[in-house]
Amino acid sequence: MAEKQALILVTNDDGVSAKGIASLFEVVHGMGQVVLIAPDSPQSGMGHAITINDPLRLYPSTLFEEIDAMACSGTPVDCVKLGINQVLRRKPDLLVSGINHGANTATNVLYSGTMSAAVEGAMEGIPSIGFSLCDFAADADFSVAKKIVASVVDAVLKNGLPNGVCLNVNIPKLTMKEFKGIKVCRQAHAYWEDRFDERKDQFNRPYYWLTGKYIEMDQTEDTDLYWIEKGYATIVPTQFDMTKYEAIKELESWSL
Amino acid sequence: MAEKQALILVTNDDGVSAKGIASLFEVVHGMGQVVLIAPDSPQSGMGHAITINDPLRLYPSTLFEEIDAMACSGTPVDCVKLGINQVLRRKPDLLVSGINHGANTATNVLYSGTMSAAVEGAMEGIPSIGFSLCDFAADADFSVAKKIVASVVDAVLKNGLPNGVCLNVNIPKLTMKEFKGIKVCRQAHAYWEDRFDERKDQFNRPYYWLTGKYIEMDQTEDTDLYWIEKGYATIVPTQFDMTKYEAIKELESWSL
Repeated sequence: MAEKQALILVTNDDGVSAKGIASLFEVVHGMGQVVLIAPDSPQSGMGHAITINDPLRLYPSTLFEEIDAMACSGTPVDCVKLGINQVLRRKPDLLVSGINHGANTATNVLYSGTMSAAVEGAMEGIPSIGFSLCDFAADADFSVAKKIVASVVDAVLKNGLPNGVCLNVNIPKLTMKEFKGIKVCRQAHAYWEDRFDERKDQFNRPYYWLTGKYIEMDQTEDTDLYWIEKGYATIVPTQFDMTKYEAIKELESWSL
Repeated sequence: MAEKQALILVTNDDGVSAKGIASLFEVVHGMGQVVLIAPDSPQSGMGHAITINDPLRLYPSTLFEEIDAMACSGTPVDCVKLGINQVLRRKPDLLVSGINHGANTATNVLYSGTMSAAVEGAMEGIPSIGFSLCDFAADADFSVAKKIVASVVDAVLKNGLPNGVCLNVNIPKLTMKEFKGIKVCRQAHAYWEDRFDERKDQFNRPYYWLTGKYIEMDQTEDTDLYWIEKGYATIVPTQFDMTKYEAIKELESWSL
């Protein structure tokens, strides 16, 4: 008798027509029953946003053959919620998100729609992985990334993940020959030193575009930013308890 | 010589015209130099979303007297970034966000625009506090909440906060007589058991509204959900390193 097929939910934040999600689909197609639900428009930087005050639309996408593929008017987290609670008849065995066009190392995990979809999966008890390639180009070369994705997905299907933990996988922009290997590490402490371009519209009223550069605060060798720059892919086990436990005692000493 | 005034940045996610931010302003007005930058429309559930692909607008709001108040077309995190990098000439001494109409206990910290603004403040090295009242009503009674806000703001201005830590303060919907006190605790592990209302539009096409109920997973006495239900306000020290450190070793044993 055939083994039960893994049910795999695929999503992303660059939108259903991005090259990255097509590449991710090519890897997981054949590893189980694949259902794809992705935003109908780019949702980069949407973080863990959900749509509360507006209705959501969900319609078939013809971009993927042989599988159930849908475009959703909402955010990446909306796609996960709709997928699990409206579209699929049972909880998926795996959720994969990406492959993102651009890095999601360090604190970018908080801004990233790709990673927020994976975190939402972890919150719902589903083994979940977010994949990002350090290349923002729309026509980025995903051939090395696809090999790494295959290896990580295979390992997660085999080993599972601790409950409440998802993986943040970042892949450097390198050829297979230049690629050094995979490191498991922690999220670097870095932040965006933001700047806004102030411009004027046709009525001479100001508007602002977010820009800036990323500043690394860590000087140690155990972070995703450190290893990515050394030519490794990085895996950060990621969870959603944001409590700073060490601060509880100090705060309890305040007279409130 | 007069002591240098604290520079206080005020924001929220319910929008500049919400009663909650007016109540917060009433508390901090007079505690320092107050600048208010809040979304021009409700931004509940926007999490840590930032606006990347669209320009942002920022215009004066006449809702607040005697201070610099601005409405912003973006998300709560956009308000913080614009405030710090475009509007203010120096880093604020305190960022306060809220008072949110509705609880942000447990994992709601990830969905909450109110708390994401505070987390963004922490990422930028600013002592930051998010306040939420467990009452969704637009005309909620903030009189008890204001007393608690005053007490917590006073303590933070006096004691500071550990770098990279902000506070998630939730306040129960109670009279001062019913109110039990303040507990410092951890974020509960709970999740939304989502459901979508499927409806039909005028062309008989489906659309979906997010709904659902909140399921508590913890059975212990040290969480925000536990103490809120017992009649206490809760303070969870909150940070932005999402690494699951305990999982690193297990993942390193995988052959990747």
